[in-house]
Amino acid sequence: MSIETIRWEKGKVKLIDQTRLPLRLKYISCSNIKTLWQAIRTLKVRGAPAIGIAAAFGVILGIKNSKAKFFFQFKKELSGVIRYLSLSRPTAVNLFWSLDRMKRVAFDNRNKPISQIKKILYQESIKILDEDRQICRKMAKIGAKLIKNGDRVLTICNAGALATADFGTALGVFYQAKKEGKKFKVYACETRPLLQGSRLTCWELMQEHIDTTLICDNMAASLMQRGFVDKVFVGADRIAANGDTANKIGTYNLAVLSNYHKIPFYVVAPVSTFDLEMSSGKDIPIENRSKDEVSKFHGRRIAPLGVKVYNPAFDVTPHNLISAIITERGLIKPPYIKNFAKLK
Amino acid sequence: MSIETIRWEKGKVKLIDQTRLPLRLKYISCSNIKTLWQAIRTLKVRGAPAIGIAAAFGVILGIKNSKAKFFFQFKKELSGVIRYLSLSRPTAVNLFWSLDRMKRVAFDNRNKPISQIKKILYQESIKILDEDRQICRKMAKIGAKLIKNGDRVLTICNAGALATADFGTALGVFYQAKKEGKKFKVYACETRPLLQGSRLTCWELMQEHIDTTLICDNMAASLMQRGFVDKVFVGADRIAANGDTANKIGTYNLAVLSNYHKIPFYVVAPVSTFDLEMSSGKDIPIENRSKDEVSKFHGRRIAPLGVKVYNPAFDVTPHNLISAIITERGLIKPPYIKNFAKLK
Repeated sequence: MSIETIRWEKGKVKLIDQTRLPLRLKYISCSNIKTLWQAIRTLKVRGAPAIGIAAAFGVILGIKNSKAKFFFQFKKELSGVIRYLSLSRPTAVNLFWSLDRMKRVAFDNRNKPISQIKKILYQESIKILDEDRQICRKMAKIGAKLIKNGDRVLTICNAGALATADFGTALGVFYQAKKEGKKFKVYACETRPLLQGSRLTCWELMQEHIDTTLICDNMAASLMQRGFVDKVFVGADRIAANGDTANKIGTYNLAVLSNYHKIPFYVVAPVSTFDLEMSSGKDIPIENRSKDEVSKFHGRRIAPLGVKVYNPAFDVTPHNLISAIITERGLIKPPYIKNFAKLK
Repeated sequence: MSIETIRWEKGKVKLIDQTRLPLRLKYISCSNIKTLWQAIRTLKVRGAPAIGIAAAFGVILGIKNSKAKFFFQFKKELSGVIRYLSLSRPTAVNLFWSLDRMKRVAFDNRNKPISQIKKILYQESIKILDEDRQICRKMAKIGAKLIKNGDRVLTICNAGALATADFGTALGVFYQAKKEGKKFKVYACETRPLLQGSRLTCWELMQEHIDTTLICDNMAASLMQRGFVDKVFVGADRIAANGDTANKIGTYNLAVLSNYHKIPFYVVAPVSTFDLEMSSGKDIPIENRSKDEVSKFHGRRIAPLGVKVYNPAFDVTPHNLISAIITERGLIKPPYIKNFAKLK
């Protein structure tokens, strides 16, 4: 994969500023936790797995200057860092999964010197990134089996290299299918309001020479009606114990359309996206974002001053509309409650 | 109605340049047929009924300088004018209905002096506009009966004052309900790619102090899932004999969603929108527009250079997804083939 979305480099987190794509491929460096928090908050880095990696690196930035001599002091600082990072975005569970993992590793090594714990935490953050790479490849191989020659597939938002440390989730399936020599066509929903589909997904897929056609979100129904879509692949930000899946706003729309047109609807996500403590999608917190994202475009007003706006960043697709969930541990079919239990 | 979208003024067609809204309310004058053709083509004037009125005025602009002395000469010029105007946009049937009507009036008066025929044609164009006003009010009264206190209604594109000579079609229903003192809330889909919903519908509704909330098109499913939508009202560009309805891209999407969530889905359109010569929606020509509408925004690139784009301006909602069609002649329920026949 030629795109490297996020990495640790010389004591800083280097990442692609995704708000500048597709016009410019610009890397930024975050040398402290505040700039990293802002980068997550303002979607310079986004995508559930990438947010998880960024958060782990954020922990390292947050503790690197710690003067703590004893664990009880260090623990307090670490908790503050983790609390701060956990407030950057609410929906993608990978953020919390990653922070929990870092915390657990610190506590598991509480009897070691602080300098040693810092080193171990750094190694853990690198491990989270490396694991994500391997997980992407595994999901891609499992998912690519579903792609047939001549398929026309549809996706929304960006569940690709820019959302992970490697191949991506949904788009990883396409990269693998391409590697395997399969011929297929991708329709990318532009994904209003922030256009991750047109700006990021089209850019990524075209870098890899995959046949890509951009549509507005409201055109997917027409495409399906005309018989132009064989399968839908999407990512996920959080998956509840019953299989209900939170993902970018518009995903549920595609799931209802797929159901009506009898088109398979697949979710591609690592196991770190599962939140088995939530019994259903009703409990998943949904981030509401600024009205300006909808009523303005690059500072230019596109709706009347003072108009009310409803702008949830995610929606929840109920499990009964999902044909299968592709994870690094295999393809999971309904009933999800039963089949998720086997993952443990 | 405070908004006057189109009128004849001192030998010119004066109309609101809708591409400038909501930032500026700017009127332009078309003194010749070419500028009027361009105004239709570039969506300065849009909306099926308004296009019909503009076309009738276009005929007047096209023949006003005619030097013809005999009808066989005048007929030739008139046919050229009509052919030219008919190529401005392909989907809205009101354009062709209006041109046919003007042609018929000319032929019905073929034995009169050319100067007299010109006068009669001018009167006919004014009649088309005046009739549209009355039709809007009739549809609005019939449709408003469907609105209950507390309703949350959803619409797409702009089927309002800016699409007609008066109250509008779908939005006319809301204006009338407001006049009747009903309390309700409107959700407006922004309507990508050209944002007629955010730019025009929100502007119109807010001018009339109607409670309006803007959403991106891909958010309608989430709204419905949460139980926030009681009814959907949309306009139409062409309705086939079986009730299949062409309207702005995204309408079919809303119809499928309404069906899934068991929400009534109403089309509001004058009888001039019916094309009973088309047995089904499959025959309706769908306008494909420039890829730049999707890949650029106000000249700024939002998708990678060279990306392919699918950009149909309309889709077709099959009759089985339409709860009823509101016309100036009454509310028509399925079966449409049978009930349309009663309109003749």
